[in-house]
Amino acid sequence: MVFELTADSGHEQVSYFTDPETGLRAIVAIHDTSLGPSLGGTRIFDYDTEDDALADVCRLSQAMTYKAAAADLPLGGGKAVIVGDPPAIKTEALLEAYGRAIDCLGGRYITSVDVNSSVEDMDVIAQTTDSVVGTSDGLGDPSPITAHGAFHGIRACAEAVYGTGSLSDREVVIQGLGKVGRSLAEELLAEGAAVTVSDIDADAVEAFARDHDVETVAPEAVYERDCDVFAPCAVGGVVNDDTIPTLECDIVAGAANNVLAERRHANELRDRGVLYAPDYVLNAGGLITVAKEHLGGTREEAYDEAAAIGDRLLELIERADDRGTTVLDAADAYAEERIDGAETTLASSA
Amino acid sequence: MVFELTADSGHEQVSYFTDPETGLRAIVAIHDTSLGPSLGGTRIFDYDTEDDALADVCRLSQAMTYKAAAADLPLGGGKAVIVGDPPAIKTEALLEAYGRAIDCLGGRYITSVDVNSSVEDMDVIAQTTDSVVGTSDGLGDPSPITAHGAFHGIRACAEAVYGTGSLSDREVVIQGLGKVGRSLAEELLAEGAAVTVSDIDADAVEAFARDHDVETVAPEAVYERDCDVFAPCAVGGVVNDDTIPTLECDIVAGAANNVLAERRHANELRDRGVLYAPDYVLNAGGLITVAKEHLGGTREEAYDEAAAIGDRLLELIERADDRGTTVLDAADAYAEERIDGAETTLASSA
Repeated sequence: MVFELTADSGHEQVSYFTDPETGLRAIVAIHDTSLGPSLGGTRIFDYDTEDDALADVCRLSQAMTYKAAAADLPLGGGKAVIVGDPPAIKTEALLEAYGRAIDCLGGRYITSVDVNSSVEDMDVIAQTTDSVVGTSDGLGDPSPITAHGAFHGIRACAEAVYGTGSLSDREVVIQGLGKVGRSLAEELLAEGAAVTVSDIDADAVEAFARDHDVETVAPEAVYERDCDVFAPCAVGGVVNDDTIPTLECDIVAGAANNVLAERRHANELRDRGVLYAPDYVLNAGGLITVAKEHLGGTREEAYDEAAAIGDRLLELIERADDRGTTVLDAADAYAEERIDGAETTLASSA
Repeated sequence: MVFELTADSGHEQVSYFTDPETGLRAIVAIHDTSLGPSLGGTRIFDYDTEDDALADVCRLSQAMTYKAAAADLPLGGGKAVIVGDPPAIKTEALLEAYGRAIDCLGGRYITSVDVNSSVEDMDVIAQTTDSVVGTSDGLGDPSPITAHGAFHGIRACAEAVYGTGSLSDREVVIQGLGKVGRSLAEELLAEGAAVTVSDIDADAVEAFARDHDVETVAPEAVYERDCDVFAPCAVGGVVNDDTIPTLECDIVAGAANNVLAERRHANELRDRGVLYAPDYVLNAGGLITVAKEHLGGTREEAYDEAAAIGDRLLELIERADDRGTTVLDAADAYAEERIDGAETTLASSA
């Protein structure tokens, strides 16, 4: 049931929208607006059950709260799902109705691109609401900025582990050559790092290796590759019970979402002496970019703020050392301190 | 599941609000805002299951859409439930958090008193939102205005059945001596009607009969009492398979909500030659009063608008005769015509 999930996870508001004319069925989860309006993408997906859709949107919106809070943004966490098979349901009329639905939330939720929703979709949604970012009038592709933030995060990890943030000759393995992975590889190469790349798409690996001075590793061998930094930039859940015993790195720091299969895996990495940089701290560059678009600012400013992820991470690593916790625990605690300090929830507005 | 219920019933938005500090769990159902912001009371009730709460709030909000539309009000239908045992959960902090929750809906839902929520509760809610009516600063107790509307509805029924709206010497049986039932009895007596009253509270009947020139009938004998008009003003569901065969009246017209156990009972009354005045048309005086409070106006104007229920009902009776339908069908059709003509749904805003 709904309350079971939303009350336990501390969601302020979860709204179900339907529109018979366009067939719209959307769930918008607003997790926490203590720090500002909630921001998060709209996922369009044909969930097996409505329970699955609710569980997904709630999990994702809660994660956005932590991501925004840890990035010192004046934003809360939200997320939305439109339920249905994307090619079958995605019409201009449906997206316009969805924009009106978002507009009903009075600015408490701002949407953006996500799985199966595009910049072009945001342009349609923008016809019926101002509560949208990531349009073609925005600050452009956030991927290089996400990579820039992750790059500075990796520098911070090196600083903590090796006493120097220089990545010259450091061996970094990048899993996934999507837009973020490629940008990250190029920044690392420019810094003089020894970069190894891997992707399930062999053609993508070959094409990238042709143009760049990198080594390559087969997808199945990526975890056991001896290196300084393992940077997951593809799917989630790659750090798990199977892969942890095979890891031959000092640092796990990448831009993928949900790198850990389970939260306890952060502790297991720590027990093995591997520094794990929380994914949501490292990959906040994308959120920083759309936040900048919403709050007003330039792409250059977004790059600068993403670079500051390095200092933030170093601070969190120090806190974790002081308290004897994982960096993930320190990051969560930092985010929760910011949220609790704001006190602008339903219970007591500022 | 939620969509199953909300999509089938045409609900624009159903929002779940939770607040961990106060324990608030509220569902706000906005059925239709084509004609204006949705208005409906907040029910506080300890439902057995969350499904029960959702079903109740959706059923009630849909009914408010029809009531407002049939009363020619520039309002849509909405309703809210706060889930929990009223004495245990109802704190000032919870009601204030609830007011903030309503405020998040940006004026699309306006609340008022309902089961287990009082004028005093509305005063607390008004501290955190403007989207509330029925406060102690409002237009006062709507009960006499509800009775006034029902009185004019009964006159219209008499006009249709007997060719004259005069209720002089007409025999009217009133079931229920709550505030509305007592007011209605007094208006009828002033008009010269022969009034019989009944209530499960024998003391209430005795006290009323002491001060007024009425006859009384035992609660169990009320349905079979020979009369012109049977006016249910107590609980719902009193016109059902058991009571219909025993009715000895020409007209069923009262101020209770959900007079019919099932919709088909309107047809069965018609088949038996009994005129049934749709409850939501007849008892709209309360809604008219709080609408007047919200939109601005005087108590006297609310009385005048409630009196106009008579002409509205006469028009609906004529339509029903023309089309060979029940008056309930005619009322629903009238409401739907108004809503469809407005076209300000999510799909296409005006």
